[in-house]
Amino acid sequence: MTENPWITHSSRVMYKNAWITVREDQVTRPDGKPGIYGVVETRLATGVLALTEADAVYLVGQYRYPMECYSWEIIEGGSDPGEDALEACKRELLEEAGLTAAQWEPLGGEIHLSNCHSSERGYLYVARGLHEGEASPEGTEALQIRKVPWSEALAMVDSGEIQDALSIMAILRYERVRHMQDASRAESERNFMD
Amino acid sequence: MTENPWITHSSRVMYKNAWITVREDQVTRPDGKPGIYGVVETRLATGVLALTEADAVYLVGQYRYPMECYSWEIIEGGSDPGEDALEACKRELLEEAGLTAAQWEPLGGEIHLSNCHSSERGYLYVARGLHEGEASPEGTEALQIRKVPWSEALAMVDSGEIQDALSIMAILRYERVRHMQDASRAESERNFMD
Repeated sequence: MTENPWITHSSRVMYKNAWITVREDQVTRPDGKPGIYGVVETRLATGVLALTEADAVYLVGQYRYPMECYSWEIIEGGSDPGEDALEACKRELLEEAGLTAAQWEPLGGEIHLSNCHSSERGYLYVARGLHEGEASPEGTEALQIRKVPWSEALAMVDSGEIQDALSIMAILRYERVRHMQDASRAESERNFMD
Repeated sequence: MTENPWITHSSRVMYKNAWITVREDQVTRPDGKPGIYGVVETRLATGVLALTEADAVYLVGQYRYPMECYSWEIIEGGSDPGEDALEACKRELLEEAGLTAAQWEPLGGEIHLSNCHSSERGYLYVARGLHEGEASPEGTEALQIRKVPWSEALAMVDSGEIQDALSIMAILRYERVRHMQDASRAESERNFMD
């Protein structure tokens, strides 16, 4: 019941630039009829929740050309060829925020950002033990950086001010981690007192 | 500081099918150099968190062709031409799960699913007061439907079993709503006892 119900007969690249490739497949659909499937292929999408010892998170502001709006987000970027998600996160953290981190942890599993027409895969990491260096954004980037307290980042998600999907997921996933850590700490304290 | 730092000189459609349009713009980049920007234009992406009175949520299982994997998700779909997000949600709930709902509420604000190369906008709704009818999936869909308790849906997000971005956001956003409702109820009870 979970097998691939599509049959792919052929595949052709219809558009390609340095960031995306669009292919069109000739297929037989699940109902047995002939059809096409257009798939956007991308680099890995990565996001870094960079946390300070004072429980603040780094946010990056930039104008997002495809959305025609300004956007506050966690530190994000696409992987370079041959680069894995963690390497891409380390590079982006340095390029965009001028930061290196002593500790890296994955924040939940792989994310499929737009699985109806794109094969984009997202990965999130938490970075701690931050050390400030010098930022060197790419020519396609005009960035603002700010540190906001955790409660404010969460409020920006709750209010809808943060609209970027990877940022929403990173902040809500990490809030779950905090919530579960609090619950587990309270449980230990109860057990200790019993 | 939040204005558009890009200049668009021209725009051309490079690929188009019934679901996506890919255009390439000739631009001047934020650093003043010439460049291109490829943008994937899509229909609205919508997701419905359909909740029963017994606190279970409807999940849909389907093979996602672009990801080459089977995926359990909330009820989702793209808008038809001229349709707004809520209308699309109502149609998808009926087509995929054979359900109508008496109550609809937006679940958080607009989501930008992949804002680096796509203009896709996502909208989430909570549907309650469900009434069962008959499903009529499209020929491109081979679906399984199941009802899972809320705690199980949340566990599927925490474990990484649910990988679809809209589903992750819907479940984590709604868990926040529940958490805040619990906190507010506890606060009222405290005030009542004082």
